[in-house]
Amino acid sequence: MMEPKPPLLAITMGDACGIGPEIISQACMLPTASPCVVVGDVATMRRAVVQCGLTLPVAQLDAPEDARAVPPQCMAVWEPDRLPAGLARLPAGQVHADAGRAAIRCIEAAAALALAGRIGALVTAPIHKQALAAAGSPYPGHTEMLQALAASGGSVPEVRMMLANDELRVVLVTIHVGLRQAIDLLSVDRILQTIRIAHRAGQRGGLATPRIAVAGLNPHAGEGGLFGNEEASVIEPAIRAAQAEGILASGPHAPDTVFMRARHAAGHVGEFDLVIAMTHDHGLIPVKYLGVDRGVNVTLGLPFVRTSPDHGTAFDIAGTGRADPSSLSAAISMARDLALRGLGLDALRP
Amino acid sequence: MMEPKPPLLAITMGDACGIGPEIISQACMLPTASPCVVVGDVATMRRAVVQCGLTLPVAQLDAPEDARAVPPQCMAVWEPDRLPAGLARLPAGQVHADAGRAAIRCIEAAAALALAGRIGALVTAPIHKQALAAAGSPYPGHTEMLQALAASGGSVPEVRMMLANDELRVVLVTIHVGLRQAIDLLSVDRILQTIRIAHRAGQRGGLATPRIAVAGLNPHAGEGGLFGNEEASVIEPAIRAAQAEGILASGPHAPDTVFMRARHAAGHVGEFDLVIAMTHDHGLIPVKYLGVDRGVNVTLGLPFVRTSPDHGTAFDIAGTGRADPSSLSAAISMARDLALRGLGLDALRP
Repeated sequence: MMEPKPPLLAITMGDACGIGPEIISQACMLPTASPCVVVGDVATMRRAVVQCGLTLPVAQLDAPEDARAVPPQCMAVWEPDRLPAGLARLPAGQVHADAGRAAIRCIEAAAALALAGRIGALVTAPIHKQALAAAGSPYPGHTEMLQALAASGGSVPEVRMMLANDELRVVLVTIHVGLRQAIDLLSVDRILQTIRIAHRAGQRGGLATPRIAVAGLNPHAGEGGLFGNEEASVIEPAIRAAQAEGILASGPHAPDTVFMRARHAAGHVGEFDLVIAMTHDHGLIPVKYLGVDRGVNVTLGLPFVRTSPDHGTAFDIAGTGRADPSSLSAAISMARDLALRGLGLDALRP
Repeated sequence: MMEPKPPLLAITMGDACGIGPEIISQACMLPTASPCVVVGDVATMRRAVVQCGLTLPVAQLDAPEDARAVPPQCMAVWEPDRLPAGLARLPAGQVHADAGRAAIRCIEAAAALALAGRIGALVTAPIHKQALAAAGSPYPGHTEMLQALAASGGSVPEVRMMLANDELRVVLVTIHVGLRQAIDLLSVDRILQTIRIAHRAGQRGGLATPRIAVAGLNPHAGEGGLFGNEEASVIEPAIRAAQAEGILASGPHAPDTVFMRARHAAGHVGEFDLVIAMTHDHGLIPVKYLGVDRGVNVTLGLPFVRTSPDHGTAFDIAGTGRADPSSLSAAISMARDLALRGLGLDALRP
């Protein structure tokens, strides 16, 4: 059988004042199995190469597809139109509206490439939420922005954030809102949609009936109603509805042990393929516990593949060249794998 | 220097229908460096020995102190008065008010021994919160019950739950309440008291200025106010007040990375000695992630040492003899260490 043509990956620059341009530069030094095009500002990328002390030519492309012709260990950059001027002169590590504006433009342009089928997958470098807000964006993060960009005919796709590393695949019901508001947002419909999206992702990943564990919200999953009623009022009905659709969902499980039970590691066979977490930190604490360098953020439900590192702009070390590109590299690898053959969940099975 | 006399440890039986009696029986087969007395029902303990298929004589004591004269690999049991009759005939794995009543009596009697200085430390086997409620207890768990029992002269000691394993020491601001109520309970005073209790525990553990990380409540610790205001309204003021008292507290840190940063493991030097978590599951998810068998629950702030395994009654396997005594054994070891020489936090330092 012929090996499929490697997909073209687009990497958005992220916030120009954060570590995004630096980790992209570092990652471009590593061997990759797919051609990559950086959607960003050429001058900012050249500055990042210098900040990292690298010898890495930066080629400005006329069209993203030209990246397939760029040799390895050369960075291919495609500049979207309407980028703010002077980005490469912004001080590192600070919130700046222009950096927010540029990040938004790069994401918009890259999403358009993905929707047009001109790239196989999208990898996004970190943005800063305060810079987005300073730039007037109504979106708190990538996920919400991509969801709006992928809307068609007035229909906004339901998307969910999945965090994945070697051991765990966690899909989040709520993400970038305060914890009180996250609890208010929990509903049978939102939880059921999350279970369905996780189920479809697992199926695309090669599992006929992915084993989906649904975590509770409250300590001990409510301890039979003594510690909160969300398990009875919204989580259990959503699980029952999913089961009625033939989905292998179980729970609500106690949040403090479900991730340990789902963990796939040497000598530890995980009980589940995917875990649904009600809140951002219930899901992210276990994924990040063994090191952020291994975690990848995957947006499920979009009409294209999108991954990102699971860390932020790290303003405290931006501009020093010290940022670790491991998570971005993992995101690039996972984007390629997803574009080629789905989630790869079968690798987690014993 | 003379080795100090090993402290006498008391182990409460826990819920007679749960795995408590079985894991105590299993743990009694392991070599321990301290004499132990089980505070419980003799017939129930004898049943558990049989359920586990062990050859382990069970000696009924007239006084707890007689445990010092009991040979190794013999279980020493002291029965408190007013235990319900027929406990050993209750079916395993079910909520029963009599099991709740017996568990409460054992805890009351053992706490009285501890307060009188007749034992060096208290280890508690798991109880079932619904059985407690069925027995009419107003307390949702051990911690609250022990706090009430330790009250003197109308003054109830402020206590906090600490979860500890080889890698992490986490102190919780809130525990056994629904998540909404936990958020409502957060106040400058409650958080500041938690930081103080953790600081004193660290100092008793041999660190002059323990490094205390305070986790935020909301995603990204509120992302500068975009995702909730509890960081600004209660957490930051508590940290500043603690710092003004000379405590080395920092934060609020993003909940999803602070535990990873604090982790002490081979090749990973933890940045902090103790982490303060706002909610039960923010704190327990990382402590349990690598396996519940290694976690120990320590109550800080009581006038005596108290530890327990960090798992529950496991009704699903109660009576089968298959329960794993590892966490109880770890709790026994930690109780002994705490009684002898404090928290042992210095061992976590690089």
